[in-house]
Amino acid sequence: MADDNISTSDLLLKSTYLETDEVVAELRAVRIAALEQRQGHTRPPRLPSRKVIATVADGLSMALFPNRLGPVDLSVEGVDYYVGYILNVTLRTLLVQIQHELHFNAGTEVLSPEDHIRAVSVTQKFARCLPQIRRLLDDDIMAAYVGDPAAHCIDEVLVCYPGIAAITFYRLAHELYQLGAPLIARMMSEIAHSMTGIEIHPGAQIGRSFFIDHGTGVVIGETAIIGNNVRLYQAVTLGAKRFPIDEHGALVKGIARHPIVEDDVVIYAGATILGRITIGRGSTIGGNVWLTQSVPPNSQITQAQA
Amino acid sequence: MADDNISTSDLLLKSTYLETDEVVAELRAVRIAALEQRQGHTRPPRLPSRKVIATVADGLSMALFPNRLGPVDLSVEGVDYYVGYILNVTLRTLLVQIQHELHFNAGTEVLSPEDHIRAVSVTQKFARCLPQIRRLLDDDIMAAYVGDPAAHCIDEVLVCYPGIAAITFYRLAHELYQLGAPLIARMMSEIAHSMTGIEIHPGAQIGRSFFIDHGTGVVIGETAIIGNNVRLYQAVTLGAKRFPIDEHGALVKGIARHPIVEDDVVIYAGATILGRITIGRGSTIGGNVWLTQSVPPNSQITQAQA
Amino acid sequence: MADDNISTSDLLLKSTYLETDEVVAELRAVRIAALEQRQGHTRPPRLPSRKVIATVADGLSMALFPNRLGPVDLSVEGVDYYVGYILNVTLRTLLVQIQHELHFNAGTEVLSPEDHIRAVSVTQKFARCLPQIRRLLDDDIMAAYVGDPAAHCIDEVLVCYPGIAAITFYRLAHELYQLGAPLIARMMSEIAHSMTGIEIHPGAQIGRSFFIDHGTGVVIGETAIIGNNVRLYQAVTLGAKRFPIDEHGALVKGIARHPIVEDDVVIYAGATILGRITIGRGSTIGGNVWLTQSVPPNSQITQAQA
Amino acid sequence: MADDNISTSDLLLKSTYLETDEVVAELRAVRIAALEQRQGHTRPPRLPSRKVIATVADGLSMALFPNRLGPVDLSVEGVDYYVGYILNVTLRTLLVQIQHELHFNAGTEVLSPEDHIRAVSVTQKFARCLPQIRRLLDDDIMAAYVGDPAAHCIDEVLVCYPGIAAITFYRLAHELYQLGAPLIARMMSEIAHSMTGIEIHPGAQIGRSFFIDHGTGVVIGETAIIGNNVRLYQAVTLGAKRFPIDEHGALVKGIARHPIVEDDVVIYAGATILGRITIGRGSTIGGNVWLTQSVPPNSQITQAQA
Amino acid sequence: MADDNISTSDLLLKSTYLETDEVVAELRAVRIAALEQRQGHTRPPRLPSRKVIATVADGLSMALFPNRLGPVDLSVEGVDYYVGYILNVTLRTLLVQIQHELHFNAGTEVLSPEDHIRAVSVTQKFARCLPQIRRLLDDDIMAAYVGDPAAHCIDEVLVCYPGIAAITFYRLAHELYQLGAPLIARMMSEIAHSMTGIEIHPGAQIGRSFFIDHGTGVVIGETAIIGNNVRLYQAVTLGAKRFPIDEHGALVKGIARHPIVEDDVVIYAGATILGRITIGRGSTIGGNVWLTQSVPPNSQITQAQA
Amino acid sequence: MADDNISTSDLLLKSTYLETDEVVAELRAVRIAALEQRQGHTRPPRLPSRKVIATVADGLSMALFPNRLGPVDLSVEGVDYYVGYILNVTLRTLLVQIQHELHFNAGTEVLSPEDHIRAVSVTQKFARCLPQIRRLLDDDIMAAYVGDPAAHCIDEVLVCYPGIAAITFYRLAHELYQLGAPLIARMMSEIAHSMTGIEIHPGAQIGRSFFIDHGTGVVIGETAIIGNNVRLYQAVTLGAKRFPIDEHGALVKGIARHPIVEDDVVIYAGATILGRITIGRGSTIGGNVWLTQSVPPNSQITQAQA
Repeated sequence: MADDNISTSDLLLKSTYLETDEVVAELRAVRIAALEQRQGHTRPPRLPSRKVIATVADGLSMALFPNRLGPVDLSVEGVDYYVGYILNVTLRTLLVQIQHELHFNAGTEVLSPEDHIRAVSVTQKFARCLPQIRRLLDDDIMAAYVGDPAAHCIDEVLVCYPGIAAITFYRLAHELYQLGAPLIARMMSEIAHSMTGIEIHPGAQIGRSFFIDHGTGVVIGETAIIGNNVRLYQAVTLGAKRFPIDEHGALVKGIARHPIVEDDVVIYAGATILGRITIGRGSTIGGNVWLTQSVPPNSQITQAQA
Repeated sequence: MADDNISTSDLLLKSTYLETDEVVAELRAVRIAALEQRQGHTRPPRLPSRKVIATVADGLSMALFPNRLGPVDLSVEGVDYYVGYILNVTLRTLLVQIQHELHFNAGTEVLSPEDHIRAVSVTQKFARCLPQIRRLLDDDIMAAYVGDPAAHCIDEVLVCYPGIAAITFYRLAHELYQLGAPLIARMMSEIAHSMTGIEIHPGAQIGRSFFIDHGTGVVIGETAIIGNNVRLYQAVTLGAKRFPIDEHGALVKGIARHPIVEDDVVIYAGATILGRITIGRGSTIGGNVWLTQSVPPNSQITQAQA
Repeated sequence: MADDNISTSDLLLKSTYLETDEVVAELRAVRIAALEQRQGHTRPPRLPSRKVIATVADGLSMALFPNRLGPVDLSVEGVDYYVGYILNVTLRTLLVQIQHELHFNAGTEVLSPEDHIRAVSVTQKFARCLPQIRRLLDDDIMAAYVGDPAAHCIDEVLVCYPGIAAITFYRLAHELYQLGAPLIARMMSEIAHSMTGIEIHPGAQIGRSFFIDHGTGVVIGETAIIGNNVRLYQAVTLGAKRFPIDEHGALVKGIARHPIVEDDVVIYAGATILGRITIGRGSTIGGNVWLTQSVPPNSQITQAQA
Repeated sequence: MADDNISTSDLLLKSTYLETDEVVAELRAVRIAALEQRQGHTRPPRLPSRKVIATVADGLSMALFPNRLGPVDLSVEGVDYYVGYILNVTLRTLLVQIQHELHFNAGTEVLSPEDHIRAVSVTQKFARCLPQIRRLLDDDIMAAYVGDPAAHCIDEVLVCYPGIAAITFYRLAHELYQLGAPLIARMMSEIAHSMTGIEIHPGAQIGRSFFIDHGTGVVIGETAIIGNNVRLYQAVTLGAKRFPIDEHGALVKGIARHPIVEDDVVIYAGATILGRITIGRGSTIGGNVWLTQSVPPNSQITQAQA
Repeated sequence: MADDNISTSDLLLKSTYLETDEVVAELRAVRIAALEQRQGHTRPPRLPSRKVIATVADGLSMALFPNRLGPVDLSVEGVDYYVGYILNVTLRTLLVQIQHELHFNAGTEVLSPEDHIRAVSVTQKFARCLPQIRRLLDDDIMAAYVGDPAAHCIDEVLVCYPGIAAITFYRLAHELYQLGAPLIARMMSEIAHSMTGIEIHPGAQIGRSFFIDHGTGVVIGETAIIGNNVRLYQAVTLGAKRFPIDEHGALVKGIARHPIVEDDVVIYAGATILGRITIGRGSTIGGNVWLTQSVPPNSQITQAQA
Repeated sequence: MADDNISTSDLLLKSTYLETDEVVAELRAVRIAALEQRQGHTRPPRLPSRKVIATVADGLSMALFPNRLGPVDLSVEGVDYYVGYILNVTLRTLLVQIQHELHFNAGTEVLSPEDHIRAVSVTQKFARCLPQIRRLLDDDIMAAYVGDPAAHCIDEVLVCYPGIAAITFYRLAHELYQLGAPLIARMMSEIAHSMTGIEIHPGAQIGRSFFIDHGTGVVIGETAIIGNNVRLYQAVTLGAKRFPIDEHGALVKGIARHPIVEDDVVIYAGATILGRITIGRGSTIGGNVWLTQSVPPNSQITQAQA
């Protein structure tokens, strides 16, 4: 009888003791098992943090384009101070992340003095590349402005176009990839992927004045090589066709398996280009085309239409 | 005459009184009209909050992978405390959201004692599934590592691959869907959709060692069934072909209308597979293929090429 | 000898002086060169800020749907106060951004009194449109609910569907585009693009009861015109076919170059529709169809299947 | 030998495992022991939170003086919306805190329906007092302006004077004290104490046009009664002289033990007035005076000077 | 009968509608009445914001002592960039606050061009004083280090001593007071008062090598003049004795009414010194002394002891 | 003529270029000069950060009293996880600060391995003291509850009384002082000073069941020794009388110069007790008493009254 009258809150309070001790213990067991299987030891080496790399990428973008991407009320006389400040903070942060990556790769218990020095050197070299990256990006922006009838001014391109964000992150990530921090580089390009739907592997090589319009669904693989003045539209894939397997049945990693796109090529939306083939200079690849063989310069490839 | 000389600031100040009372009143009228039309009453029942569900999904991810997705400086001896702490906070938050969903469904003015108890029970059952979800995710990660030549280490897969983020959110959401919180589940999978471009309906059933590469544009429908060791590439659709209509002309909701994909199937980029058909075990579906009929095991389906 | 014993920290500390003065100076030189080339002067005029526009778009969404998108614990008696409050804050913020856009366009050193007044007027007019935008969105939501068998309730559509988020931002942005703030409008639609993978140019004209399902990869161009009761699926492109060039070899900007889609049309996933063609009322365009010519009313266009 | 060469980082890493399990366990034991001793059970009933009360006090201050203490860019047409909004948010928060206080006092496992209703009633009554509190504060501000030659305008008094902050918090806290939430009231007055160095017990009764100048070190006890137009300077104490003890040797709590200060009294810096004595209307008490006996109206009490 | 069984939540929900419309309306009425009474119009002129001034004071402190009070991980090579950056941000913010103060004083509807220019000029002049303020503070810090046996190093003094914080804010505020922004100056010194319990009116004049030990309760009035090498202890008052009244019975504001303390004077804890008297060079005033008459150089004043 | 018509904004914009380069350069010169003078080198060694120490003190308080000072919605089953978590985070943070202090003291360019190890050892020892500190604080709280007629429950004392906050910080700081981190200890006690107006030097020795009522203005010096069951009121000073000077005219630092207060002593508000004297067990010192000579046990010292 009394139970019928029991109040809601009573029931709520009595039943809201959530048992978690067992779950925590079980999660620990699974975690340790996974670590042991993977790396043969139970202490997880520290990894670079994706969240931190996101702040690094933001900081570098602001150092490159302080007037457009920096703080809202940046004053003219304060620009250089701001650039110097954000650059210092960002490079320090990046240095620690590079140490983590080198340490993780070394697999030792402590970071070796050589890797300490290497991390500083990578950071310093990376810093010196920034002006050149800015120059490349100025060309990319100009290519977008010239190539899109919907672009009303150059600044609109920088601030609005997802393609420019993706290329900015790519150019930064590619430099880090080459300097020996491929994991950080990959994180950076995946951050851009999440923001823009454009995936450019930091290992890809891309020339000057590159423009991706709209962009959602674009995939550019690790060993792709792209010349100057190339233009891509949304959902273009520059992918691998097949994956060679070694004698143990495992994938062979790292071999050249993505297309080479020469200068002045345009590839329209949804085209899928697979394997280590070459798209000759000046070619145009039509929308939704499926291409797995090289084409000579100045080809015009189109899909049979409905 | 004097008007010509009036200063800019003068004009600005005098004209910056923005009239909003009328807009607020009109918005209220529209809002009440919409509520009445939809639910027959003017008091909006509370709904789970997407922003809160995002923190829940983050908290669960950190509890599952504390060393990789948790706080940057988590110390070895602090891991279990952290897992226990974040789990408690997150489950409490989830509990309240489940109460909102049950309350919203009940449509009553107050949450019934039964629903109070049910919310606690759902939360507790969900908590107990977390170690098994971690085990499934370890397999998914391994499948990605083994299946992608660009993956240089297992941790890179966990931290960088959008496919892993999407599957993590899916496996959490699917459990909530099955336990009776489909709206929260849907929010969770849409959060993953926004981050990764991969849409997996929480109602879909997916086996072990599942891998989605690149992923942007993938759509997996509510009633899809996917076996073990299946691999998908970007822009693959497992969708519905047609929507049956009842005698009143309204869509019939909830019937099985998406594909069944058996074990060991690979589906390449851009393939569109529609309707309640079966892709037989061990089949390979080529890129951009359009498929609306079942295929037997070990089929090799490719598009006619340009 | 002593070098062998040198401690790690020693090395680290000595080598972590990062040289940035030169980088800052070089970045400044590149920045000034770029500014001079573009605008003929070295003082950058202020631009609207994408981060600020994101808060404006959020604020407007919360003013339109306070119970669903507003603060978690909004009380019934506080709704109108909240709407009035968030509206005031948001409109003030928008006003300043519109001033920046007008100032940027004018290219003068100070904002003219006329542009001051115009900014206030645009903001006020925009505010007055909000109730009508809410009505249109109610219809869009209803269209999604009626058209998707996976939609279990109307509120699920509002809170979960990326298509609804994209249309909400579009309807706001389109109004700003028409009132003379196209750059802010573009930022707003690119914010939606980043969140949803759906790109709708704010210049496009879209009728009532519009529904985009799944949505990733959808592109709707600047001069597209869409009627009432139109439904699109993921990866549909309403794009331009070719870009006319003027006598100097530069693109002609602003001419009508995207499709007209009449009432009651359905376009399935991956269809690509290019050029100023017309899709007749009541037509259905199949998945992955490539279409560059007008089709009459009630057409059923499908791709040749594999 | 090898030890001499061991690197700093090595040593650091090896030794930075901090043992905390034992400390956590021991802290738990102490905590449980303390709880048992105090309340006879091990489950701590929830208490109002000082941090939350601080936001309540801030919210109420902003609702009372929106133009001076509210958001920096509050617009004229947005004031009432803001007041309504902040008031709603703040009263909701306060309501929950009052529930905690009533629940804590009841000592039961769940809050009784009567206390639920009482909490709502207290909150509602408190809300209705706010306009009257604003009127009293306007008088206090005027008294400060008139009474201090250093006050150059009325708004300076409101925004700068610690005495005004202390009285504002006191007047709010006193109302809560009288309505039955003495613990929340005490927290509120201690927050003011921390900010200003002025301690006014919320149980004290204070008339109109009260002014405390400078204020650091002022103490006004629980049962003090202060008339209209009273002025105090820094370090004035209105305290208790001795504490009666009951037959068990315990302090008798709650009896009248602090001074009564009648209308139009001025008390200069450092004066110490102890016990249930009366300072007659119109009296002046000099700096550093030590007073433990009543004085008639219009007395002039001064310390013997050096 | 049914009422007895009604659940807690039911009651709670039904009764938690808090009526606020009336309170908002009444608060508005009180607010408008107060504004009318004070200033003769209903539109509140904007005032400098205390919260903003707090960030200004923090920013200036960090610009003055970047290595000690600036960001935790400031690197050596980044110091000047940081100082330049924080200085720019802070001075811009201060400029706007000075505009508000001048506008408030002018009482006009818009800020006049002259006041615009004056605000910029005040900000620029203030900036130029900062190095000299740093030099004065270095002397103050040294005086504390030399004068307190508990001070173990100079940096401890800067970082720990409340007297140094109070003097830092005073020296900044005094400069603003002299340049014509007395309200901002007062806010700044009240912020220090709240943090340290030390109240120094920004109008006071204080020489080099000034040291306040412990400090709680110190009050230094608007027209006090303090020489070089003066040392004060806690609870010292340099106050006014009586306030002259004009023919209308109102206080005469602004006349010299606080003590003059010559070089090399020490004043011990709790001493109260009132009126326009002079403490001669080299004097020592004992603890708790009450002094209202001038004393010649090298006086030793002590209280009669218990 | 034209000048008369020039708009406000024009003037504003033209004149708002604030010259900061010179100020930055001059500040740098002053900074370097000060560093050279003080420490003979221009590179500032890092110091512990007061802001960081504030978070450490907060974290420790929450670990000691999780139910009262921890997060608002801490659940019963989550308490130990929370304590373990916050303790780990806080001790790690403290460890780094202790490293900074040891490094600063050593004055070397890098932290020696010995100091690395010492920092870890200090942190670990400190952690082991926490349960005992909690026990001492439980006694202090009980002493306050028993000794103040205004205290209505024990939890009120913990959450509201500034004396308890001051003693908590003192007991933590004293432990750090003894373990060899006096600068961090001093920062911690100055943070309490700022919050409560009570200054207790971390070097002071204080027995069990210590209670400070009201507290503003209390000063307890570095070498003071206080027994068990001592009670102080506001503005009590336990200070030094005179400072011995060495043969070079510099203060002799570190010698015993503050009072010894034996068990069971009560000291009322405003009493000033100076020099290395002893207040005998069981004595009562009256308000405002000035005392510079020892008194035997059970003395009753009072001021001559007005």
